[in-house]
Formats: sequence, structure tokens, C-alpha cells
Amino acid sequence: MTIIDVIEKKKLKQELTTDEISFFVKGFTDGSIPDYQMSALLMAILLNGMTDRETFDLTNAMLRSGDVVDMSALGGIVVDKHSTGGIGDSTTLALAPILACCGVYVAKMSGRGLGFTGGTIDKLESIPGFDTALSEKEFFEVVKRVGCAVIGQTANLAPADKKIYALRDVTGTVNSIPLICASIMSKKLASGSDTILLDVKYGSGAFMPDPESALELAKKMVAIGALAGKRIGALITDMQQPLSDHVGNSLEIVGIVDVLNGKQNRLYHEIKEVAIRLLALTGKYTLKTAEAAFQEAIDSGRALNKFAEMVTAQHGDASYVLHPDKFEIGSKDVVVADRDGYVTGMVAADIGRAVTHMGGGRMQKTDVIDFSVGVIMKVQLGSKVNKGDVLCEVYHNGKGLQEAKRLIQNAITITKTKPAEHKIAYAYVHKDGVELF
Amino acid sequence: MTIIDVIEKKKLKQELTTDEISFFVKGFTDGSIPDYQMSALLMAILLNGMTDRETFDLTNAMLRSGDVVDMSALGGIVVDKHSTGGIGDSTTLALAPILACCGVYVAKMSGRGLGFTGGTIDKLESIPGFDTALSEKEFFEVVKRVGCAVIGQTANLAPADKKIYALRDVTGTVNSIPLICASIMSKKLASGSDTILLDVKYGSGAFMPDPESALELAKKMVAIGALAGKRIGALITDMQQPLSDHVGNSLEIVGIVDVLNGKQNRLYHEIKEVAIRLLALTGKYTLKTAEAAFQEAIDSGRALNKFAEMVTAQHGDASYVLHPDKFEIGSKDVVVADRDGYVTGMVAADIGRAVTHMGGGRMQKTDVIDFSVGVIMKVQLGSKVNKGDVLCEVYHNGKGLQEAKRLIQNAITITKTKPAEHKIAYAYVHKDGVELF
Repeated sequence: MTIIDVIEKKKLKQELTTDEISFFVKGFTDGSIPDYQMSALLMAILLNGMTDRETFDLTNAMLRSGDVVDMSALGGIVVDKHSTGGIGDSTTLALAPILACCGVYVAKMSGRGLGFTGGTIDKLESIPGFDTALSEKEFFEVVKRVGCAVIGQTANLAPADKKIYALRDVTGTVNSIPLICASIMSKKLASGSDTILLDVKYGSGAFMPDPESALELAKKMVAIGALAGKRIGALITDMQQPLSDHVGNSLEIVGIVDVLNGKQNRLYHEIKEVAIRLLALTGKYTLKTAEAAFQEAIDSGRALNKFAEMVTAQHGDASYVLHPDKFEIGSKDVVVADRDGYVTGMVAADIGRAVTHMGGGRMQKTDVIDFSVGVIMKVQLGSKVNKGDVLCEVYHNGKGLQEAKRLIQNAITITKTKPAEHKIAYAYVHKDGVELF
Repeated sequence: MTIIDVIEKKKLKQELTTDEISFFVKGFTDGSIPDYQMSALLMAILLNGMTDRETFDLTNAMLRSGDVVDMSALGGIVVDKHSTGGIGDSTTLALAPILACCGVYVAKMSGRGLGFTGGTIDKLESIPGFDTALSEKEFFEVVKRVGCAVIGQTANLAPADKKIYALRDVTGTVNSIPLICASIMSKKLASGSDTILLDVKYGSGAFMPDPESALELAKKMVAIGALAGKRIGALITDMQQPLSDHVGNSLEIVGIVDVLNGKQNRLYHEIKEVAIRLLALTGKYTLKTAEAAFQEAIDSGRALNKFAEMVTAQHGDASYVLHPDKFEIGSKDVVVADRDGYVTGMVAADIGRAVTHMGGGRMQKTDVIDFSVGVIMKVQLGSKVNKGDVLCEVYHNGKGLQEAKRLIQNAITITKTKPAEHKIAYAYVHKDGVELF
């Protein structure tokens, strides 16, 4: 078998065998297949597609290129939620303690952010003392004892994906559903959870521009997860505006504490939907009993205490979580409406970029993040505003302020006509079908 | 403009602008666009196609990457015939003197062969003393005085094509009609003839597997040539068996001399068809007067004498052309029929490979060719044979004989049923339409 044979076959829209897929993933990872052949193959895959079977084999071949985490020693249900990325997406931080309160384990290995805002790990590190680099042993001990823990990714999960993604990024081969699916699922399946809820986002600042393409990706990922023997489902959710009113690092922790205190904003409703779906997926709950368990965890204050308990177990200062006004936040400025009307558009990605410009995210891997900067949105899609009303508060330390304000101002569209009602979730995909909301 | 923008556009099956095409040809040729991005773009072009306008712009951009030969100083009609390659294709060697006898110039710059058998230049060099490396000045003098000359390509014609072809060869992107068309036409248009006949072959051993795809390629090339202001036409011909009964280097010269002496075999008929079409294309002849001129050149012996004159002008020993038994030929062996029946299939490419195995072609650029080896076919498609009949004579010097005989034996299919009549030419394509034969 040669790589040219494999390229020729996919070029003719034929189905590749398991061996052929394993051959090119291995060969590209070990360097025996050069970039220029791999990019021709990636373009052929993008244009001619892959069956679910091929995508499953691709996922498996990428998964086998690195470590596979074994969580069976925990002796319980281990759940995981994966979001395809978004601005102000700090849901993991609230879900971990809520789900732990409901009797399932959350053992989360997260990445750092590059590009828009920080990643989950960066947000946690804005809590003084919080250690995201626990040893594997200590990580499992915390999960076993507290029910949840969140650390930076240490295991060498799916190195093939890293190398393939770098090439896709510079050859116009990012937006292929089988390739996106294999990229996400290879890492998910390697990370050892048995129950997985995917949050597939659409809109500006997401991989998928519209709900239809997000649905197609979600179906493919659920099919692959089910083939791998996982309990899996996917929510299709809107990324047409930042998920949280709080965008930044310390500020997103503040937003999460609000949710754990029961503040019923958009983020709260999204987290509730994800938690209920995930609990129902485990088979231990129905949708109804899951909702009751969620409500009890929040209303009793157990979820907030669980978050504090996790912070303490990971050597952080839990007083910041219990008294979020302790967070040092930058100087306040505001962006105001330049006309009367309704907020009808919000380029979420540009609001993320604004925070990065102020130092709240990384342009390059080595950049140090300023946890104290960020944005608090005062409007959302559909809000009625008058000229001069505050659209959002901008917290800064001088760096990049004007550029950030300009980006935000341009990111928010205000028109005369009231827009239609805005849904957070568009559909739920499970292995047997799709529920449209 | 970035190369990723161009890739994204072609990926979405959009038409590229003249500037975008010029940008990627220039960038790839000067090394600013790396192989891995070019190969993704080539695959997108292969799968999503190019319009005639895009193909014309690609041809022009590749043409402009190198020298353009100016033949206007000859002050007459300069004709060229280009074959898309094949086994035993030595037609140029007979056409040059025949056409010169008919009052048009043939100033041919040819390549050397790599892979199957030698190229036209290698065949000529089997004539002792023949100089294929004349200076440009001497080349034009010979053309002006004799009417024809054939030399190796010295001008730097379309270097972009060379670099792009090398990448296509290893990325499964050879068989794209726009890419093949631009590759051939960029060199043709750079080489300065005003009247061009293309011989587009199909069958084993040719770029195109069937007459339909050969016709599609021919239409595209004729359209591009016409857009560039050339008088151009294309014959679609069969490469399902070697064109000449003689395959090799010295042996093909022997076969050409046979044709110039009026031996009416398949090669003779193909050469006649090409010559008549080419003469008619110039506008100086009708098909009828062209046929008469062809016949007169052969029957009078003027064409053979013209060949000898060209050989002498290029410092070769013309006595070999006038007395071809002077050529030193290897030892004779034979391949015989292993059953009774009809010859119904011949893998021409494998007969070419057999000659290469015996030393008659190059596996690598630096290989030295043994002019004296080759094959004389004793059967053609449709021939009736009995077990033990000689299928072909194999002339060798010991090297690779067994492998060559095995290849030839397997290349020739003998079955019980008589095959249908076999046509040499399938269609003629001119700028206003197609004549099917």
C-alpha cells in the first residue's frame, strides 16, 4: 500500500479500509508521509466525505496515536461535557460541582486557550493558589473524594490530531465534518469518560455557521461515540452572542458563582439544560428526576460549597469563590449605544478578541494572561436600548482599551426593528434520533 | 490575497480570477507557497474543475514563468505536432521531413524519455553522429535551409509546469483535465509554432483511459489554443497497442524508414492522417490537396531524401537512414503464443516497460540507453494465431530478457472469439466542433 493509492481511492470517492486509514494516520504522525501528500488527501476527504465507518476508523487511529486514560478504578459513572468552543463558555466550572452533587464523577482534563479569551484552566488559575497541574495520582484522589476535579491536560492524548490539525489550519481543510468529528472524538474517547454530552455550537465564533451544519456534525459525533460504546448525546446551541454576560478570566469565575447562587441568566439556563441531559444520559435519572436533583443542588447551596471544596482540594483559596468581590478587577470603562433601537446582532468572536487585546487571552502560546480584564455585557440579543445606554462594561489595565472598545462597538448591531425571540438550544441529538426544540 | 483564500474559493467550486491564478503559479514557482498548500489546491482543482477561462489563465501564467520562443524570423508557416505520449510513437521523425517537403517549417524541440522507452531525441541519437544539441542559431539555419530540424529542448520553457508536474506526480493529482491541458499547452504555446496538431491518445499507456475522456481533454486544449490565437486541431487516436510494430530506439528509426519508403502499416496510416490534418490546418491546403501532396512526397522518395538531408545537416551519418541494415541490433529471441486464438488485448505500457527492462529506456534520469535493444511486433489487435506462433521478436543484449519476455507474454491477451474491427483514429476536434469517425 502506498499513500498515492490511498489518495487515488478517496479522490474517486471510494470508501477507505480500516488498514488504509490506519496506514496514513501512522505514516503522517511518524513523518514517513510528507505534508504535501497528507494535504492532498485531506482536501480529497473534505470534498468527497467519509462514511460513519471511515470516520470511526479515523477517530480510532488518531486515538491510538497516544495515551488512553483509564478511569475504571473510580468505580462509578464518569461524565464529561465537551463544548466545540465559544466565547464566555465557562459552563464546565459550574457543571463539575453540580454533577458531583448529583452522584456522578467529573474528572476533567482541559486545554489552555489560544486566540479568544483564556481557556478553562486559565480561568481557574485566576483563583489564587489553584493548582491545575496535580499529579495523576492526586487528581484521581480529589475526584474520588470530592467528586470532581479539573486539571490541565498532561496525558499525550491523540498527538496525531495535533499534527493533522496544524496542517488543516494552513491548507483550507478545517471545515470538514468527518475531520472535525475525528479531531474532537479522538481526544474525547482517549480521556476515559463513559458518558459524554457534546455541546455543538453554531454562529459567529463557532466552527459551524448555522444550526443545520452543527446538527450534521453532532449526528456524526454521536454516531462515532455510540460505535465506541459510550453513552452520548449532543445539544445544538447558539453562539450568536457570548454565553455568559461575563467575559474574561476572573470575571467568568464571578459569573459562575452567580449561577451557583441561583441567578437565572442565559448561562444558568444553558448549564441546567446540559446538566439535566447529562444526568439522564447516565441512566441513573429521568429528565424529571434530573431536573429536581439539579434544582436541589443549587437551592440548597451544596453546589456552591462543592465548588469551594474542589478549589480547596486543588490548593486554591476558596474564600474567592465564597466572596467573589475579593477578585481584583481592572478599571471600569463603558461602551454605549450610538443610536436608539434593538440589539439584533452580536459578533461574539469580536467580543472575545476585544478581551484578548486587553491582555485577557493569548495571541501566542507564551503570552501571560491578565486575569483582571474583561467585559460584562449589559444587553443581549433583543434588548431595547436608547442612545447613550451602556451596552457593556469594559474592565482594563490600560492595554488595548481603544481597540477593544472599537471592536465591541462594531460587534453589536442596533436596528430599529425588534428581532424574533432567541432560543438558546436548537436541538438534542441522541443515538436513536433528533429532538428539535 | 493569501493562498488560503485561493484554496477556500476553489474548494467552494468558485471561479478563480486571473490575478488569483497568476498569484499561486508565481508563488509556487518562486517557493513562497509551500508544497503542502499547492497540493491541497491541486486536489481542489482536480475535484472541482476549472472553466476554459481559468484553464487559459493557468496556461498563460505557466507559459510566462519561462522563455517564449520567437520563430517569426523564419518568415513562413511553422507547424508542430504534439502527442500526449505513447509506446512506439516515433511519428515526429517521419512527419518532419514529409511536412518540410510540403512547404511548411518543422522546428521541433523535443524532450528525452523517462519511463517507457526513449524519447524522440534518444531515438535520433541512435544515428551515429546525430547532434541534438545544436545552438539556437544553427537550429534556425537548418530549419530555414532544410525545412526541418529536431533538437533537445534547451530553452527554459514553462518551468512552473516542471515544478507543478513533479508535485502532481506524487499527490494523486495527475489526471485532471484542466491541469493536463495547462501543462501541455503552456509548453506548446511557449515553443513558437503557429499551427498545432495535437494527437490525444487513449488506452493503456496513455493519460486518458477511454475515447470520451480523451475527447474532453482535446476539446479543452483546442479551446485554449484558439484563445491564444493559434491554428489548432486535435486527433483522438488509439493507444491500445504500440503505434509502431517497432519499439526501441534504433528499431524505431528502422520503422520510420519503412514508412518513408511507403510501407503501408498502422504507423503509415496514422502519420498520413496527422500530416493531412496539419497541412489543412495551415490554410494552404484542402484535405484533398494535402493528401495528394503527402502521397507525392512519399512516392517520389523526396521525404526519405529530406530525412537524410536533415540527418546530414545535424551532423549525423545519413547512410544509416538510407541503409537501415547498418544499425547494430541486439540478439534475437522470440515470444510465442501459448494457445490458439485471436489477439484481443495488448497492454502497450507493458511492452514499453519490457524494452526499458532490457536497457532501451531510462528508469532514472542518469541511465544510459542501449539503442540496440527493442521489440518487433509480429501481431496486432485482431490477428489470428496458433499456439507456438511468434507474437514478437525481442532484441536484447542479455540484460532483463526474462523479465521483458514475461511482461510481453502477460501483456498480450489471446482469446477464442474474434474481436471487433479496430479503428486508429476516433475523432477530429477543431475550434468549431467535433467530427466523429
